[in-house]
Amino acid sequence: MPQPRTPVVVLAGGTGGAKLARGMLDLVGEDLVVIANTGDDIDIYGAHVSPDPDLVSFWLADRIDERGWGLADDTFAVMDGLRDLGAEVWFNLGDRDLAWCLERRRLLDDGATPTQALAALAATIGAGGRVLPMCDAPVRTRVRTAGRWTAFQEFMIRERAAGPVEDVALDGIQSARPTAAVLEALALARAIVIGPSNPIISIGPILAVPGMREALRAAPAPVVAVSPIVGGQVLKGPTAAFMAGAGLPVTTAGIAQAYAGVADALLADEADGVASLPVRIAGTLMDDAAARRAVAAEALDLADAVRMGA
Amino acid sequence: MPQPRTPVVVLAGGTGGAKLARGMLDLVGEDLVVIANTGDDIDIYGAHVSPDPDLVSFWLADRIDERGWGLADDTFAVMDGLRDLGAEVWFNLGDRDLAWCLERRRLLDDGATPTQALAALAATIGAGGRVLPMCDAPVRTRVRTAGRWTAFQEFMIRERAAGPVEDVALDGIQSARPTAAVLEALALARAIVIGPSNPIISIGPILAVPGMREALRAAPAPVVAVSPIVGGQVLKGPTAAFMAGAGLPVTTAGIAQAYAGVADALLADEADGVASLPVRIAGTLMDDAAARRAVAAEALDLADAVRMGA
Repeated sequence: MPQPRTPVVVLAGGTGGAKLARGMLDLVGEDLVVIANTGDDIDIYGAHVSPDPDLVSFWLADRIDERGWGLADDTFAVMDGLRDLGAEVWFNLGDRDLAWCLERRRLLDDGATPTQALAALAATIGAGGRVLPMCDAPVRTRVRTAGRWTAFQEFMIRERAAGPVEDVALDGIQSARPTAAVLEALALARAIVIGPSNPIISIGPILAVPGMREALRAAPAPVVAVSPIVGGQVLKGPTAAFMAGAGLPVTTAGIAQAYAGVADALLADEADGVASLPVRIAGTLMDDAAARRAVAAEALDLADAVRMGA
Repeated sequence: MPQPRTPVVVLAGGTGGAKLARGMLDLVGEDLVVIANTGDDIDIYGAHVSPDPDLVSFWLADRIDERGWGLADDTFAVMDGLRDLGAEVWFNLGDRDLAWCLERRRLLDDGATPTQALAALAATIGAGGRVLPMCDAPVRTRVRTAGRWTAFQEFMIRERAAGPVEDVALDGIQSARPTAAVLEALALARAIVIGPSNPIISIGPILAVPGMREALRAAPAPVVAVSPIVGGQVLKGPTAAFMAGAGLPVTTAGIAQAYAGVADALLADEADGVASLPVRIAGTLMDDAAARRAVAAEALDLADAVRMGA
């Protein structure tokens, strides 16, 4: 699949980044390239599950379920079957979602890279734009709480993200490299937008891939970050706990600190006295398609402004 | 799970052996022990599928589907999902059947033996009696046709068992041994019945496990075989092609030849001039529960007759 000539690149974790990407798809169509976190990946049920790239792909195909994850109208016969067999089903996966992840496992076993496997899968559901795993090497996020390390999904689901978070580790990150597709997209991009995802566990792993920060700095395009904090709160997931664990205030200032040296400007709903980089104030709620488009447009406009030196 | 004190042991492949086992369950209840062929096992969809032991277990739980395989009332959402993703779905597996096989894979990965995994699974569906894999080591049946070797399931399903069959190989058989549970059941048995399954590819692998023939010969119990040939025909599957490939006539005489040195007597619907061992003539159709019980009772009675020296 050829790259768009001047892509708009969105860095994304789960829902926040995915919603922004969906809004961006309305604006730039096939010029959209999403770089997605793979630190949440998990091998389970004989399948390879890649929650963030999959969530983004489902959003870009308008196949995301209302529950916020998985495929719309999916059934759960296999999970029900496992429960009836006495298995502990702590990681829920719909039947068609499982098929998707089993097919990925098969493609990987047949020698495809994660990038190739996702492209093949995404094509079958007509996902718009292009979703790229941040790297093809396996990276696994782990979380330390109360002195004990837990795999990311187990922490999030089994332990219901019960903090406080003391530390985050990214197993395998030192061997990971941005893929050629990621590097090409960044080099060609006309705008790079860090989506409103968790800066520590969603965007953090992307930025931690050795060479990624350098590629972002070397990219001619402006890098703008959309804050995940709305009205002083984090809308989804345990972002606050992870920011606190990283010593960051859960404020626009904390987001600015998280993206220091990476972002050229910040889109947030309040300025919070940030001086280290320009902050544009705008609504960042993305409750419907119009709002998603509006936030994406604002991010693009902010990137233009940065490029113009405004 | 303790063994029954004086089990009735049934050697079984797929449907024929499973039906006989189900009839036997009505007669001897928890004294039933089935030793099932694992040469048809296949690793697919991230799961470990063990068709013969599973088929027997589903029969013994009255959960077999009318189609003749798989769990009753199962759905096929994962297979449909795989097809929609462009995957070639040549091996069909229901959602709950997949759950069963995924849970087996997990149990095996956690260190369970195939014997332990099947016992755990069978207990959850209330299967009567006890089904034992013939061995815990992996054995894989392959088939040669037109000079080319094919894995068993691919031959049976993808190639629709298109013969003629030139040869059969059992990969891994030399490293396999009857399990302790199998040896104990045979040693304690009051009767051993070879079910009306394919003598080459269903019962053949069981008998080929090194030590199995010796254990059968050493067992105090009589060994009676139920012929899979009804009215001069084989009711299910490609038994005729495999018997022809092994140089055996598709007759009672061919069955007697296949079990020479193992069976003490044969239950068949025609004598066919067999002189090498006693043949009792009886109907062997097992179309309903009463017929399954009747054939099982006939086999038990024949075993009694052999024991009495009749």
